[in-house]
Amino acid sequence: MDNCIFCKIIKGDIPCYKIYEDENVLAFLDIAKDAYGHTLVIPKKHCQNILDADDDVLKNVMSAVKKISNHYVNDCGFGGVNIINANNECAEQSVFHLHIHIIPRKNGDNLKVFPHFLGTDAELKDMQDKLKLN
Amino acid sequence: MDNCIFCKIIKGDIPCYKIYEDENVLAFLDIAKDAYGHTLVIPKKHCQNILDADDDVLKNVMSAVKKISNHYVNDCGFGGVNIINANNECAEQSVFHLHIHIIPRKNGDNLKVFPHFLGTDAELKDMQDKLKLN
Repeated sequence: MDNCIFCKIIKGDIPCYKIYEDENVLAFLDIAKDAYGHTLVIPKKHCQNILDADDDVLKNVMSAVKKISNHYVNDCGFGGVNIINANNECAEQSVFHLHIHIIPRKNGDNLKVFPHFLGTDAELKDMQDKLKLN
Repeated sequence: MDNCIFCKIIKGDIPCYKIYEDENVLAFLDIAKDAYGHTLVIPKKHCQNILDADDDVLKNVMSAVKKISNHYVNDCGFGGVNIINANNECAEQSVFHLHIHIIPRKNGDNLKVFPHFLGTDAELKDMQDKLKLN
């Protein structure tokens, strides 16, 4: 995609702090730096996000996410990782080329990745009725 | 796994608000309700998290995540979704059976899923040197 900043990074037209690359996937540090070691894993084949991704693209990206996450935990001193992904603008997606965020974690890092919703237990049944797929 | 609460849900020993099921995957509402429609997608084959998941398990889970996410956007009135996953206790994992969180999103929902790290641009090169995999 001519106007996609991540496609330009893949082509080498824009530099990045590369962490990992294979024939299908590129991973580099996110300049947004939401956390120390904040990493993006992207497919080389353009798609907008998970909603329109081919299953093979998802498989390749997640295999790389697993490989890099194990590297961070086993080799780089982190205790765990969060995986975050945003699909569409209202979900805080700002670049429309599929990217999986890896947020490396340590005890006491004071990060928090889950939002908080003030709901009641009685809403669960109502949610299920509205949302169930099969 | 005998002591795993999610394996008990899969077996039907503990009830859940089921959203989707196929031969490899189960999805149900998270009683933690971090957001309206907060959904968990889990593999029926037990593993702890992404770090020890087979690639086929990841593929099946992500295929279901994509299917449910498209259902939420196309059929249920949401504008997008976030995908969140926690690996190990320091990354806020509390149940040690792989689960992918789907957080349905709408404009103006006031949720925020990305943490915030106060770093400097100069740290990126240092991070790369410490973290790169190839």
